[in-house]
Amino acid sequence: MQMEERIRQMTIEEKINLLAGASFWTTQAIERVQLPSITLTDGPHGLRLSAGTDMGDMLSQTKPATAFPIEAAMAATWNEALIQEAGAVIAEECQHYDVGILLGPGLNGKRSPLGGRNFEYFSEDPFLTGKMGTAFVKGVQQGGVGTSIKHFVANEQETNRMVVSSEVDERALRELYMLPFEMVVKDAQPWTVMCAYNRVNGTHMANHDWLLNGVLKNEWLFDGLVMSDWGAVVDKVASVQGGLDLEMPGPGTRGAEVLAAYREGKLSEKVIDEHVRRVLNVIDKVLTNKRNVPNLDVERHHAAARKVAEEAIVLLKNAEGILPLAKGAKVAVVGQFAVEPRFQGGGSSHMNPARLDSPYEEIAKYAQAVYTAGYDETDNEASLQEACRVAADQDAVIVFVGTTEKIESEGYDRTDLHIPRSHTQLIEAVSSVNPNVVVVVNSGSATDIGAYDEQCKAILQAWLPGQAGGSAIANIVFGQVNPSGKLSETFPLALEHTPSYLSFPGNVKQVTYAESIFTGYRYYDKKKLDVKYPFGHGLSYTTFEYANLRVSAKHLQNGDTLKVRVDVKNVGSRTGQEVVQVYVHDRVSSVPKAVKELKGFVKLELAPGETRTAEIELNERAFAHYAEHLGRFAVESGEFEILVGASSRDIRLTQVVEFQAEEDAREPLTMEHSLQAWLKDDRHTEKVQHVLSQMKIEPENPMYPLFLGMPIRTILMVLPRRGYPQEKVDELLNLFS
Amino acid sequence: MQMEERIRQMTIEEKINLLAGASFWTTQAIERVQLPSITLTDGPHGLRLSAGTDMGDMLSQTKPATAFPIEAAMAATWNEALIQEAGAVIAEECQHYDVGILLGPGLNGKRSPLGGRNFEYFSEDPFLTGKMGTAFVKGVQQGGVGTSIKHFVANEQETNRMVVSSEVDERALRELYMLPFEMVVKDAQPWTVMCAYNRVNGTHMANHDWLLNGVLKNEWLFDGLVMSDWGAVVDKVASVQGGLDLEMPGPGTRGAEVLAAYREGKLSEKVIDEHVRRVLNVIDKVLTNKRNVPNLDVERHHAAARKVAEEAIVLLKNAEGILPLAKGAKVAVVGQFAVEPRFQGGGSSHMNPARLDSPYEEIAKYAQAVYTAGYDETDNEASLQEACRVAADQDAVIVFVGTTEKIESEGYDRTDLHIPRSHTQLIEAVSSVNPNVVVVVNSGSATDIGAYDEQCKAILQAWLPGQAGGSAIANIVFGQVNPSGKLSETFPLALEHTPSYLSFPGNVKQVTYAESIFTGYRYYDKKKLDVKYPFGHGLSYTTFEYANLRVSAKHLQNGDTLKVRVDVKNVGSRTGQEVVQVYVHDRVSSVPKAVKELKGFVKLELAPGETRTAEIELNERAFAHYAEHLGRFAVESGEFEILVGASSRDIRLTQVVEFQAEEDAREPLTMEHSLQAWLKDDRHTEKVQHVLSQMKIEPENPMYPLFLGMPIRTILMVLPRRGYPQEKVDELLNLFS
Repeated sequence: MQMEERIRQMTIEEKINLLAGASFWTTQAIERVQLPSITLTDGPHGLRLSAGTDMGDMLSQTKPATAFPIEAAMAATWNEALIQEAGAVIAEECQHYDVGILLGPGLNGKRSPLGGRNFEYFSEDPFLTGKMGTAFVKGVQQGGVGTSIKHFVANEQETNRMVVSSEVDERALRELYMLPFEMVVKDAQPWTVMCAYNRVNGTHMANHDWLLNGVLKNEWLFDGLVMSDWGAVVDKVASVQGGLDLEMPGPGTRGAEVLAAYREGKLSEKVIDEHVRRVLNVIDKVLTNKRNVPNLDVERHHAAARKVAEEAIVLLKNAEGILPLAKGAKVAVVGQFAVEPRFQGGGSSHMNPARLDSPYEEIAKYAQAVYTAGYDETDNEASLQEACRVAADQDAVIVFVGTTEKIESEGYDRTDLHIPRSHTQLIEAVSSVNPNVVVVVNSGSATDIGAYDEQCKAILQAWLPGQAGGSAIANIVFGQVNPSGKLSETFPLALEHTPSYLSFPGNVKQVTYAESIFTGYRYYDKKKLDVKYPFGHGLSYTTFEYANLRVSAKHLQNGDTLKVRVDVKNVGSRTGQEVVQVYVHDRVSSVPKAVKELKGFVKLELAPGETRTAEIELNERAFAHYAEHLGRFAVESGEFEILVGASSRDIRLTQVVEFQAEEDAREPLTMEHSLQAWLKDDRHTEKVQHVLSQMKIEPENPMYPLFLGMPIRTILMVLPRRGYPQEKVDELLNLFS
Repeated sequence: MQMEERIRQMTIEEKINLLAGASFWTTQAIERVQLPSITLTDGPHGLRLSAGTDMGDMLSQTKPATAFPIEAAMAATWNEALIQEAGAVIAEECQHYDVGILLGPGLNGKRSPLGGRNFEYFSEDPFLTGKMGTAFVKGVQQGGVGTSIKHFVANEQETNRMVVSSEVDERALRELYMLPFEMVVKDAQPWTVMCAYNRVNGTHMANHDWLLNGVLKNEWLFDGLVMSDWGAVVDKVASVQGGLDLEMPGPGTRGAEVLAAYREGKLSEKVIDEHVRRVLNVIDKVLTNKRNVPNLDVERHHAAARKVAEEAIVLLKNAEGILPLAKGAKVAVVGQFAVEPRFQGGGSSHMNPARLDSPYEEIAKYAQAVYTAGYDETDNEASLQEACRVAADQDAVIVFVGTTEKIESEGYDRTDLHIPRSHTQLIEAVSSVNPNVVVVVNSGSATDIGAYDEQCKAILQAWLPGQAGGSAIANIVFGQVNPSGKLSETFPLALEHTPSYLSFPGNVKQVTYAESIFTGYRYYDKKKLDVKYPFGHGLSYTTFEYANLRVSAKHLQNGDTLKVRVDVKNVGSRTGQEVVQVYVHDRVSSVPKAVKELKGFVKLELAPGETRTAEIELNERAFAHYAEHLGRFAVESGEFEILVGASSRDIRLTQVVEFQAEEDAREPLTMEHSLQAWLKDDRHTEKVQHVLSQMKIEPENPMYPLFLGMPIRTILMVLPRRGYPQEKVDELLNLFS
């Protein structure tokens, strides 16, 4: 039945009924108009399909499915095509299980490494997040399954997430927290968007008219469906007015309350029809794109998960080139995570993996490996002694450490960056008997690596690498795979240095995003703080040289696209992949700006001796900031530096370009601005100086410093009283108005 | 005539007339009721009495008076008695010139070292500011002259000061920015308070009803007069309603506008009478306290200014004990400031000094001194060469550097921490020919000492030391005086590290105090940042040892006073003074707190080998924070560490005390608080755990992490639907409400 026909046939009760779920994971079916129900269920790192239908089962029995690396790891691949492939595999599994919408990916930011759900988000950088989110959504949706980008918006913590108001200025909101959603909506057309639990600047996201109707639907032209996070609706009628199409989960009281409001004339049928249209449209899409996948190719899907893990693992450090280890070497494998792998985080993304690699067993395929647990809550001293005994006469020791399951989960935030003390003790112990210590860190976000990094030669940040993490780690350790991951977030020297440290997580009423636009590397750069490992950092077993940076134009105008080309050469002896990163530095701006911002990247594979040209396109947005007075992104004329590097703190080449904007994007000066502001503004300096010098208000005038700080309005009031000729004051007035 | 009689006799026009100045520096005289005019004029570092009466003369011809060191330097003495004496001297000069009210001291904070007027404010620490302000006000007022503590409040920058709104949360406002005003109002009863130009949280201070009427007059019981900063009134009628007694300067339109409002019934005579009463009261005080001072003892006053300078100068560094230099040594004195001393800042505090020491001439009294300018804007290369020639074969080189007059002034803020490049070049040049370089820095606030400190052996932070700075510097360099100043502000490693760097100075509309309560050392401590020289730092030519910290009680209650005693021994061979500093660290708090806060100090003089006991009293407020939900300062029960040290980063001894507060000062938990918050709160942990375990909602429950993050309100709604017995849910409900 055609949509409009169906809407005509539906009663108001049926329509309103459709605006909330039927059960925990399904929409309402309306048999009278042949409308079936569809299933929506958790992701994002693979499918988590509950065997039951209610929240009590939410985290228990779920169907086996392929567990991919967490989003933070996916982003560390910097490989859009690879993540799109992963999405396609996940879609196949959704089709197999008859799931219409996968609830993901998460696109929130990382104000603090403590964020309990950081592992489920891509990056501290909104551009990288937007690109990875776009790839993921395209992959899933090209497989005929919908996605739900979440949690829109400003949900950067678990603490008080259902009640807290994220207080964010509009620039930070637009440039950091909304940008990934904007990019994915515009570039990948996700079928649905999930609103966050929290409030933003005082209003619950489930009824945030400005953000849902104003920005998402009207400004970005999002034509899909907006659903609530599970239990996020606090005011059911306001949520209907505020742009929320579908309340989840169901069944609930939304229908009754909305119907009452409709009957009282508080809600129009037109508004209800608009929601119904969006719900029907998505159900239609699900039905139309339904494919028959009778069997799952577990082996192929496992390999896809492994490929992502292999590109996600970041070689943070490799002193004396200790890695890769020689095949056939004698190695001790210590740390329980080597046999009970830490491969995923807790909460709604928690899966039942279709298979699960044992890192130890995978290592044993390459080496003469011996294992011991290394840490033990009941008798750690004995464990350490045993680890030392085992580690003493090996060629190398591979230590598995990281955050335990209880440390990282949806539902609460971390309180520090530590891994368990027993883990650092293990590194310390084995390093005292064997100099060749390789540490594998399993964690969903930055941890305090400074606590032990002097006690080891190599560190692999292996994230929570999904079900094939074990083989991926082994392949990298023994050089079967050359590592190519780069950090998707900064690893700071100390928790106290992190951007939001003084304001995270706020109190039960509000959390102020006091750092504004300066999160992640934007903060460490601006504050001139050293970091442990910078954003974008990651080593390889080979070496890359950058040369010949050239740009397609040195002068740009609105609408132009700048092509940035740079030659990258593999000067080592192994094939490897390099992530070439392009940042933009704005030399002069009327508003505060980050020192540099990521605006493009590309991952290249190069054989030994091979040179390839990286090509990155930057469009106008790469030079723009959100100009609040214009209500849009805009570029200020001036010089910009194009920085090309191997990490945010390893810039290899730079090139200056000039942007000549059609419209002056600077906020106009007003009579409230000081004389100093007018003098500093190159649009006015000369004229103002001229009149002032005629009045002998010059730096030598003892009143000059006080005049400088006065608003023009005040000066114009004071000058005639001070005996300055009215015609000169009028001349000034003309300049200023 | 008695006040009330006078008020009865005055017409409404006369009353209203009295509420604005008669001229730039005087109040209205009303001959009909025998009311004379009084004079109010600038300070605070000494008297600045204009020869003229209008703003045009504001910075030109002024009467000679004793120029004391700037307030930042005064605070660096940490010597309340000394500052009180300085105030007494200034009062004498006011009496001599028939000035009734000295416009000072400034009590604003130092959010950024860039603040253009920082030199006119005491310290980054509100307690030190409050103590020094109290001493200053007592000194002046005991001399029969009124003061005007300024600029009330949250005026921490020059940029846009007349229009900007300082957006400050109440805790920061109360604990940092209002505290010095509160202390001085309560401890020294200043005759007047001057309101700031800026707005606070949206409202201009000149009509800020809550701050002027609500807090200052009603809560703190300030019984003096509130005047505007010169030109700060933007809404004349609102200012009358909002608590501003006197508009300055005059004459203006306040009278006419207020009269009109009165006639329209918008203002009551009662409100006007209250203002009149306060103005009359202050005029009365001035007249009653008038003393005849026919002649000024210029010599004695100069000595008083010298004494302050001697105790204010901070010996930052003294490698190899190069200082003091031997009397009779051969020294090169380089840098123009040695003969054209930098002794004061620009703007309304700019004075005409009664005398002025030349540092070079004062040094020449002790040594075989030769001088060269060292820097020269026209031919710096030649100057440098000459300086090297002069410096080469001397025993030592004393280099005078610092901020130029144009760098530091009222009216605008600095944009960086640099001293002129020609000054650092001079240090670099002479250090290449002579290893014994002593640098004397003249600046009103922290500068970038890291730029050159490896090129010199000793550094004296000499501030802008007033008219006797030259002899004070010489006395210290040659050991006639043992330095005892300690930094009243942190000298950071980089401007970028400063607390307000990302939000200072905001835009024309607002500046957000994003760092909240974490300014100065509170920030560097909390953020674990190294600094160049910490708050409270200062070396001596002798050495002090701390021992035997004891406290009068280990258990405290509301109303108690804690006596802290520590033995300090001079283990060196010279008499010296030590500033013993007491900080308090709160071990556990329900609200964010600084790592430590200054709560007491005392300066002791000790002969070689002498031991004295420092005694410092801490009252209840030393353990309190501003509890917003209670609307007052309150102490949370728990353990506090008493930290006794020689600087904020040189803590020598610590002692734990326990405070048992009568009332629980923690904000009560609500149904909006999460299960985690309730579990973490020791008032509730056990009971909540008990009920949860009966319901089998325990850490092993897979839903546990998600429950943890939920507000109790949500959990209570969800549980019955989840099949939990209603009576158990009711039991929970009882716990939570």
